[in-house]
Amino acid sequence: MPRIVMKFGGTSMAGIERIRNVASRVRAEAEAGNQVLVVVSAMAGETDRLVQLCREASALSDPKEYDVVVASGEQVTAGLLAMTLQGMGVAARSFMGWQLVRASAVHGNARVDAVESALLDEALNAGTVAVIPGFQGVSEDGRLATLGRGGSDTSAVAIAAGVKADRCDIYTDVDGVYTTDPRIVPRARKLTQVTFEEMLELAGVGAKVLQVRSVGLAMRAKLPLRVLSAFEDVPGTDIVADLSGAEMERNEIAGIAADRNEARITLTGIADRPGTVATVMKPLAAAGISVDMIVHAATRAGEASDLTFTVPRAALAQARSAIEQEQSAIGFSEILCDDAVAKVSIVGVGIRSNPQLASRMFDTLAERGINMLAVTTSEIKVSALIAEDALDVAVRVLHTAFGLDAPANSQGQAA
Amino acid sequence: MPRIVMKFGGTSMAGIERIRNVASRVRAEAEAGNQVLVVVSAMAGETDRLVQLCREASALSDPKEYDVVVASGEQVTAGLLAMTLQGMGVAARSFMGWQLVRASAVHGNARVDAVESALLDEALNAGTVAVIPGFQGVSEDGRLATLGRGGSDTSAVAIAAGVKADRCDIYTDVDGVYTTDPRIVPRARKLTQVTFEEMLELAGVGAKVLQVRSVGLAMRAKLPLRVLSAFEDVPGTDIVADLSGAEMERNEIAGIAADRNEARITLTGIADRPGTVATVMKPLAAAGISVDMIVHAATRAGEASDLTFTVPRAALAQARSAIEQEQSAIGFSEILCDDAVAKVSIVGVGIRSNPQLASRMFDTLAERGINMLAVTTSEIKVSALIAEDALDVAVRVLHTAFGLDAPANSQGQAA
Repeated sequence: MPRIVMKFGGTSMAGIERIRNVASRVRAEAEAGNQVLVVVSAMAGETDRLVQLCREASALSDPKEYDVVVASGEQVTAGLLAMTLQGMGVAARSFMGWQLVRASAVHGNARVDAVESALLDEALNAGTVAVIPGFQGVSEDGRLATLGRGGSDTSAVAIAAGVKADRCDIYTDVDGVYTTDPRIVPRARKLTQVTFEEMLELAGVGAKVLQVRSVGLAMRAKLPLRVLSAFEDVPGTDIVADLSGAEMERNEIAGIAADRNEARITLTGIADRPGTVATVMKPLAAAGISVDMIVHAATRAGEASDLTFTVPRAALAQARSAIEQEQSAIGFSEILCDDAVAKVSIVGVGIRSNPQLASRMFDTLAERGINMLAVTTSEIKVSALIAEDALDVAVRVLHTAFGLDAPANSQGQAA
Repeated sequence: MPRIVMKFGGTSMAGIERIRNVASRVRAEAEAGNQVLVVVSAMAGETDRLVQLCREASALSDPKEYDVVVASGEQVTAGLLAMTLQGMGVAARSFMGWQLVRASAVHGNARVDAVESALLDEALNAGTVAVIPGFQGVSEDGRLATLGRGGSDTSAVAIAAGVKADRCDIYTDVDGVYTTDPRIVPRARKLTQVTFEEMLELAGVGAKVLQVRSVGLAMRAKLPLRVLSAFEDVPGTDIVADLSGAEMERNEIAGIAADRNEARITLTGIADRPGTVATVMKPLAAAGISVDMIVHAATRAGEASDLTFTVPRAALAQARSAIEQEQSAIGFSEILCDDAVAKVSIVGVGIRSNPQLASRMFDTLAERGINMLAVTTSEIKVSALIAEDALDVAVRVLHTAFGLDAPANSQGQAA
């Protein structure tokens, strides 16, 4: 009997009416002959409320106590969904994270180590739907641990891998993965399939459909994911190891990602000696600031050059101050900051085999007079840093240039 | 080193400012050289909100899932208090009910079987304050179980008994146990001491300070309780096995209890044969209706007589219908119902040794022209059922007649 995990986010669980809607979908899968596990988020807004209470209680809250407080939101929705299913005549029970999910490392941002599948097997084999609060488990010292914001996706995938599920379906408030943000390009198309790697890049650069960690975990566990709408009964997007069927014929680019959460820092007159870049990154890492694009090309050996990199926009002031404190150790002339930048990327498994694609991207941007402030490439992605006010145009022209626009008569798909 | 349990109710935990106030009191006890365990309720209103969600989710909610949902409120306040204490420089950590409290029997109204004190001993001996959510534990099948509404008092006492605490202090929104309801008698006096048995009767008949179960549990464990204000720093009331010191000299009556939650049913022309009362009680028990006062005196052997008893006012209609359905089996002429009745009681350990006290009660009521519809007596209590509109006067005249009025210059105590 096929075994599937269904995961529902906070918007889908916000209130009893929506929980009833979720229960109907779960019932349909159970009646179709599947063994069903459901992983749920807290009601939309509840986790924020709990986090705010923690902040008010103590400026520096103990992550272990933070976990105790914020884990309660999913506990509530898990119980409510189980009783709603029972009320509909579906055998169901909830399991708590501490009964099932062993987690380790950092409280507040824990990692899933193992899922006690025996308890679940017993329930599933007896025809009972298992409802599990996302986002939480029990740490090595026997205390509640949470997996970090958005961790319910990761819970769902970890549990699906742990019980050897055939598939993990992520129900969300979008109905799939699009070629780009439909708010920028109304003719964006929903993808039937996307590879794990493409999804990682699309998620990492702004298509906020799934938590990045959960995609990586599914990829390693070779567990097919499906993203679909919690509210509409339409086909979603499959996230798979290898494209198949119609998608194998698709354009080499899966989509265009846009990310406004960027700020650029350039250090001028930086000494050209081994270890310079590391010296810059060290104070940033110490401050917990992650660096995205890094561009450093020494023009002539021994001569001073420039180093450009990007940081999350909210961390710009903190990054600047961390670097300025190390000015003498790093050795640079000037620090230039710019937070009116954005990143546009083409993403697709075709990029690794076709260098023409990067070239087509650069040509397209140049034709529209859009200047690239920095460029980075990977096996399946090419990203350009551009002025933020050029971002929408850049996404639109690239979407057209790579043949991603939906036929004119199917624009409705993107609504 | 003395070991104490401090229990705080929902009003004391309602919001971060109040939790800070609680933390200050906990700090004071810890700094005074006590090992401290704190048992907390959910924020006022939170349990009601969660119960309401369960009702909306399913008319007949599974008690096991109900427990999962409603147990979350205390989890939140336990985490928040632990982090607030840490923020004040007090070593503290929370423990969850499922880590400590083994419960059994009915979900939603479970009984505490055992407390895993080893974990707590370790923390307490290391100088750490232990914060524990009230109202919950883990059942024999490893699932969350709650102890029924008001169960946090019971948790506190069970935990205090389990860790062999020297005392259990119940902080609440009243500052102690009074000789009667100060809203009826402004000159009510706060008692310095009251015995467990007196407290059981006072709690059972309307002085809603402590959950009745918790008092019985403390009595069996010989654990001294103290009731005191969470908001004012004034002495409270000690609940003890035997009176001592000044209280030994006190009037034989501890207090006057008033209870409006009564309705009277009289069955006339009931057959005088063995088992008649049982026949009446059976359908009520089946409907979950508890019966309080029962008065049945056959006037002459073999002749029909009347049976009078009281039920909770809210259950009157249901009780009437349950009995009417059994009219032929029971055999009575008429059923008379009256919900404009109330119960007034004198409570005190002196009653068992002094029959004059009951007599003084009846005289006092008779002098004011208050008719007694029924009377029941126990070792430490005499109760009279009277017309509800005579209740306030009855309480006042009895309070004066038994010498309970505070001296005129100390009325402020009762504020």
